[in-house]
Amino acid sequence: MSGHGVGYPVAQLAHVEILTPKPEETLWFFTEMLGMQAVETRGRSTYLRAYEDFYHHTLKVTEHHHAGMGHVAWRTASAAALDEAVRRLEGTEFGLGWSDGDHGHGAAYRVRTPDGHIMELLWDVEYYQAAEGEGSLLRSRPTRRPLRGIPVRRIDHINVLCSDVAAHRAFFMDYLGFRHRESKVGEGGTEVGAWLSVSALVHELAVMRDATGSRGRLHHIAFWYGYPQHIFALADTCADYGIRIETGPGKHGATQGYFIYVFEPGGNRVELFGDSGYLIFDPDWKTVVWDVANESDLEKSSIWFGGRLPESFYTYGTPDVGASAS
Amino acid sequence: MSGHGVGYPVAQLAHVEILTPKPEETLWFFTEMLGMQAVETRGRSTYLRAYEDFYHHTLKVTEHHHAGMGHVAWRTASAAALDEAVRRLEGTEFGLGWSDGDHGHGAAYRVRTPDGHIMELLWDVEYYQAAEGEGSLLRSRPTRRPLRGIPVRRIDHINVLCSDVAAHRAFFMDYLGFRHRESKVGEGGTEVGAWLSVSALVHELAVMRDATGSRGRLHHIAFWYGYPQHIFALADTCADYGIRIETGPGKHGATQGYFIYVFEPGGNRVELFGDSGYLIFDPDWKTVVWDVANESDLEKSSIWFGGRLPESFYTYGTPDVGASAS
Amino acid sequence: MSGHGVGYPVAQLAHVEILTPKPEETLWFFTEMLGMQAVETRGRSTYLRAYEDFYHHTLKVTEHHHAGMGHVAWRTASAAALDEAVRRLEGTEFGLGWSDGDHGHGAAYRVRTPDGHIMELLWDVEYYQAAEGEGSLLRSRPTRRPLRGIPVRRIDHINVLCSDVAAHRAFFMDYLGFRHRESKVGEGGTEVGAWLSVSALVHELAVMRDATGSRGRLHHIAFWYGYPQHIFALADTCADYGIRIETGPGKHGATQGYFIYVFEPGGNRVELFGDSGYLIFDPDWKTVVWDVANESDLEKSSIWFGGRLPESFYTYGTPDVGASAS
Amino acid sequence: MSGHGVGYPVAQLAHVEILTPKPEETLWFFTEMLGMQAVETRGRSTYLRAYEDFYHHTLKVTEHHHAGMGHVAWRTASAAALDEAVRRLEGTEFGLGWSDGDHGHGAAYRVRTPDGHIMELLWDVEYYQAAEGEGSLLRSRPTRRPLRGIPVRRIDHINVLCSDVAAHRAFFMDYLGFRHRESKVGEGGTEVGAWLSVSALVHELAVMRDATGSRGRLHHIAFWYGYPQHIFALADTCADYGIRIETGPGKHGATQGYFIYVFEPGGNRVELFGDSGYLIFDPDWKTVVWDVANESDLEKSSIWFGGRLPESFYTYGTPDVGASAS
Repeated sequence: MSGHGVGYPVAQLAHVEILTPKPEETLWFFTEMLGMQAVETRGRSTYLRAYEDFYHHTLKVTEHHHAGMGHVAWRTASAAALDEAVRRLEGTEFGLGWSDGDHGHGAAYRVRTPDGHIMELLWDVEYYQAAEGEGSLLRSRPTRRPLRGIPVRRIDHINVLCSDVAAHRAFFMDYLGFRHRESKVGEGGTEVGAWLSVSALVHELAVMRDATGSRGRLHHIAFWYGYPQHIFALADTCADYGIRIETGPGKHGATQGYFIYVFEPGGNRVELFGDSGYLIFDPDWKTVVWDVANESDLEKSSIWFGGRLPESFYTYGTPDVGASAS
Repeated sequence: MSGHGVGYPVAQLAHVEILTPKPEETLWFFTEMLGMQAVETRGRSTYLRAYEDFYHHTLKVTEHHHAGMGHVAWRTASAAALDEAVRRLEGTEFGLGWSDGDHGHGAAYRVRTPDGHIMELLWDVEYYQAAEGEGSLLRSRPTRRPLRGIPVRRIDHINVLCSDVAAHRAFFMDYLGFRHRESKVGEGGTEVGAWLSVSALVHELAVMRDATGSRGRLHHIAFWYGYPQHIFALADTCADYGIRIETGPGKHGATQGYFIYVFEPGGNRVELFGDSGYLIFDPDWKTVVWDVANESDLEKSSIWFGGRLPESFYTYGTPDVGASAS
Repeated sequence: MSGHGVGYPVAQLAHVEILTPKPEETLWFFTEMLGMQAVETRGRSTYLRAYEDFYHHTLKVTEHHHAGMGHVAWRTASAAALDEAVRRLEGTEFGLGWSDGDHGHGAAYRVRTPDGHIMELLWDVEYYQAAEGEGSLLRSRPTRRPLRGIPVRRIDHINVLCSDVAAHRAFFMDYLGFRHRESKVGEGGTEVGAWLSVSALVHELAVMRDATGSRGRLHHIAFWYGYPQHIFALADTCADYGIRIETGPGKHGATQGYFIYVFEPGGNRVELFGDSGYLIFDPDWKTVVWDVANESDLEKSSIWFGGRLPESFYTYGTPDVGASAS
Repeated sequence: MSGHGVGYPVAQLAHVEILTPKPEETLWFFTEMLGMQAVETRGRSTYLRAYEDFYHHTLKVTEHHHAGMGHVAWRTASAAALDEAVRRLEGTEFGLGWSDGDHGHGAAYRVRTPDGHIMELLWDVEYYQAAEGEGSLLRSRPTRRPLRGIPVRRIDHINVLCSDVAAHRAFFMDYLGFRHRESKVGEGGTEVGAWLSVSALVHELAVMRDATGSRGRLHHIAFWYGYPQHIFALADTCADYGIRIETGPGKHGATQGYFIYVFEPGGNRVELFGDSGYLIFDPDWKTVVWDVANESDLEKSSIWFGGRLPESFYTYGTPDVGASAS
C-alpha cells in the first residue's frame, strides 16, 4: 500500500488549530451558530468540541494577528504505529521533533509539509468526560445535543492550499499512509487537487493548488451534520446574522458532498458538510480522476448542482494574501 | 355557504392561552426548546410569539393549579365582520359579551362553545415591533430566526376535545363560518372528529370526541415548522432533554400532516407540524369522509405511516381527568 | 376590498397551457422526471395532472412552432362569482367572450391582460376519476403517488413577464380580486415585480417586468413538492439526465420559497417549489415592499441564500426573443 | 488487534443472496420501489445492484420454496488476505471449501457460522460496466440515478439471527477481523445483540438473538439512502402500494441509524437506512454497551425516537418459523 511498508499509520483527524484576529467573534460563531462547546481557555487559546466529538477538543482557536491555520493533529492507528511513523520521518526535511503535548493529549511528533503547514502525529488522547447532567442517554453521544444554533456533530476534514499538489499528495501517502480517492488533473496532466483519506470517508484531507502561488495556507476546515437540511437551516440563520456565505448549499461532484461554505468572523473559511457524500469500502479503489482541462469535468467536479463556485474559492485562503474575498 | 349568510367572519387563529401548574418549566420548553420569544410578563401570564408570528403574541402561558386551555382567540375578516358576528351571537347561549381586550389586542367578544371552551373574536391587534438589532433583512420575517432550540415559525392550529362533535362542528360553521374539510364518522354515522378551516389550511381547528366523556378540554396546540426534518431534530433533542414524546414523527392520513406530539412540562400536549399537509383551494370542496368503523379507514386516517397512536391519544387531554398519560 | 366591490371572484389557479416545439421531449420531462400523468391526448394537445391535483388536468401541453404560454385558467369562487366577473369585464378592452370549454371543464370566459396574455375564468370543472387500482387509501389523494421520477404533488403558481407591472397588477386586483402580497419597487418608485394571491399562498400569480421590453411572455410555471429535499433530489436527477438547471436550489427572499428552476426540453422555464414559503392569514395584510434600488433589498429579495440569479433570469422568457439563455 | 494476528481480512460486504417464494413480486419491489437494476437473470436467480454499487451485483434474488438468506459474501482486503483467512479456516468446523465463483466474481471460499449461515470470502470481483448512455457524468457514480421508485444508493449491512450471540460475535472477530462496535447485554450478562464492522460504519453486520430459538435465520438486509427524507418518501409510497411497513421511520439508539423496516413481497425484512448513523474513526474504540436489563437502555437502544418496536421485530425472521408477522 506504501513504498515504505508502513501500513496506515494515521487513523483519523484529531483536531485543528485555527488562528483569528477576532477571537471573541470567532468563538461566538463556533459556540452560538455551530453549537460547539468551549471546553476550556488557556492563555490566548480556547479548546472546543462538537457534541459527538469524543476527545477533549477537535478545534483550538488561538488569537493571532492574522487568520490562518495553527496546526493539524492526526491520531495514529496505535502507539506502535506512531513510533514507526516517527522513525521514518526523523532526519528528513519533514520531521520537526517531539512536543510535550497540549491540553487534551500527550506527546506529539511535529512535522511540516513541503509547504510548511504544521501537522502533529499523536496517540495519547484525553476523552471528554461529561459533567453531571451534561451526558446523554444515547450511549454513543458523549454529551447532549446543544440547544444553541444549528449544532454540528463532529469534525470532518481539512483542506489546505499548496504550491505543488503532487508533492503534498505524495508526502501524505508515503509518510502517513493516506490513500488517493479523487484527483483533479489540469493542462498537461498537472495535479490541481487531491482528496485523500485513511477511512471510508472520501477525504479527511484535501490539498488544492493555491492559485495565488502562496505557500502553506488554509483553504477550509469542515464540520459534519450528516443531514442536508441542516445546511439549509444554517444558511437561513447566517443570512439573518450577517455571517457571509461564500457559496452553497450545493453538491460537489468530487466527493459528492452537500456543502455550504461560510466565513467565520475571523476570516477563516468553514465548510459545513451536510451528508457523507459517498463512502469508499472497495479495498482496491481506483482513484477517481477528473480532467479539469475538459469543460464537463471542470464544471461537474466542482458543482454537481448549485450555484457556480465564485473566483474567491480558488484564490482566498488564510492568511489572506490580499487577492480577494474582502 | 352558511345558513346565516354570514360569509367567513373568522379569518385566522390569533392566539391561544394555555394554563400550567409549572410555569417556569413550561416557559423553558417554549423558549429554549421551541425557540419562542417571551415578549412580556404580566402577573401570572407570559406572552410569547414565534419568529414569524406577526402579532404581539400567539401564545399566552398562565400559571394555574392545573394544565388546560384558557381561551382561543380568532381574528375576524374585518371590523365589520366582527360586528356582524357579534350581532348573531348576542342573546344566544354562546355569547358571553365583550371584554376590554388584553395586552396585544383590543376589545374582544367572548363566546363559549357548547361544551364551554372559551373563545374570543377580535379585530384590533398590535403588531410586534422588532427592537433595534432584532429585525431581519427578510422583510416578511418580523424578527430574526432565533439561535435557541429548534425554533418554530408560527402558530398553526388548535385541537379541542368535546362531548358532541357534530354540535361543535355546527357551532363553528354556523356562527363563525368555518368550512368542513375532513370528517371521521364512526358506528351509526356518529361524527367522532372534524377538521375545520377558514383558509387554504386543512384546519385551524379540530374537534375530536372526548373518549372520557369530559367536557371542554384541550387536546393540543400546534406550531408550524414547514419542514419535516425539523421534527426529526426536535425528536432527537426531546430525547436528550427528557421531554416526553407521545407519538411521531409520522404522517396522519387525515390532513396529511407530518407530526410529532410531545408534552410540555406543564402537561399540555403540543404538536409540531412538519409541513403543511396539503392545502385546499377548491371553492366547492367536498368534505373528505373517513369511515372509522371501517378498519382500513380507521388505521389510515390516523396514521398513514409511523407508529400507531397510543391509547393516551384518545383519552388524555388537559385538564387531565386521570385516565391516562401518567 | 376592491373599488369595484367584487369580493374575491377568483378562487384558484385551475390549469395552464404551455406551448412546445418538442412535444415528445416535453412530455417525457413532465411524466418521467416530474412524475405527472398524461390523462389524455387530443390532436396536438396532451392533458396532464400531478397526483394530488383534483381536476382532470392542471397542465395542457400543446405542440407549436415555438415555446410559450397558451393560456392560464382560473376557477372562480362560485358560478355567481363567475357571472359577476364577466358582467364587469364584458365591454372592456380585456373581455374576449365565452368559449365552449375544453376537455375537463365547461364554458370559460376568456380575457386578455394589458399585454395580451390569454386567461380564462371558469366554474364547471371535471374531477379526475381514478381508474380501478389507481386510487389511494389516502382519501385526500386522488391517485397513488407515482413510481416515476421525483413526482410533483400539485400545480402551484404562474409567473408572467409584462411590459408594465403596475398596470398588470391593477388589472388582476381590480377585475379578479387578487391581493397584493409582495412588491419590488425600483428607481423612481417604478414597480418591477408583484406577487399576488387569492388564498393563504403568497402567490398564485407573479408579474415581473420584461427586461427585453417584450409583451405577453411566460416567465415560468411552478409545481409544488412541499418538501425542500425533493428539489435536491430533482437537481441530482436533472444533472444526470441533461436537464438544464438555471438556478437553485436556493431560497428567495420574496415569498420565502425554496426553489429550483429548470428548462423543460421545449424551452419553457419550470420552477419546482420545495415548500410553501410562508403563508398569509392576516386579513389586513400590508404589502411587503422591497426597494430594489437599495442594494440589500435587491440581493435579499432575490436570493435569501443560494447562488446568485443569472442574467437569463431577468431576460429569458418564452417565446424566446433571442436575448439569452441559449 | 486479534488473537490470531490476522489483521482485518475482510474489507467490505460484497453481496447478499436472498430466497423468495414470489420471485416476480420480490423483483418488482426491488426494481420498481427501490429503483434497483436487474443486471441479469440466470436460471432461478436474478442479480441486482443499486446505482452507486460498483460491482456486478450486490443482491442476488433466488426463487425458493420459502423466504430466507442464501448466502452473504465478503470481499477481503487483498488476495493475500483471502489466502491467509482461508489458511486459518481450513480444517475448522467453519471452513466449507472453495466454490468456483458465480456471475460477477471469481473463486470464493465458503464458510458456515456456528448456526450454519452460509458466508463467502472472495477477492476477485467484476466491476459493473455501464452500457452506452447509462453512465453518469458524476465520476464516482457508476450509473445514472434511476427514474423509478425511491432509488437506494448502495448495499449497507446485513443482520442475522442466531442462537448464541457471543459465539457468533467471536467467530466474526476471530476469523474475519470484525471489530465490536456496540453490544446489548441482558440478564446475567448474556449478549443479546452485537454490531460489528470492518470500516468506519458502526456495522456491516449485526447478530441478534433469535427469540424463537431457531438457528441460521435472516433478520434483515439493509440498503442505504444517506438522507432521512427518502425514508419518509418510501414510507409514503409503501402505504400507497400495499408494501407492509413493520416499523419506522425512526432512529435507533444503537448505531444511531434512521431506519424504516418493510417486508418485501416474498417475506424477507428489508431495512432502508436513511443516514450513516454515526461513524467510528477512533482506532482504540471502546465497545458501546447497552444493559438491556435496565429499562432506560432497553428502550433507548432500540428506539431513540419513533414508534416502539413491535413484537415481530424480535421473533420474525426468514425462513418464518410461524411465530409472528402474519
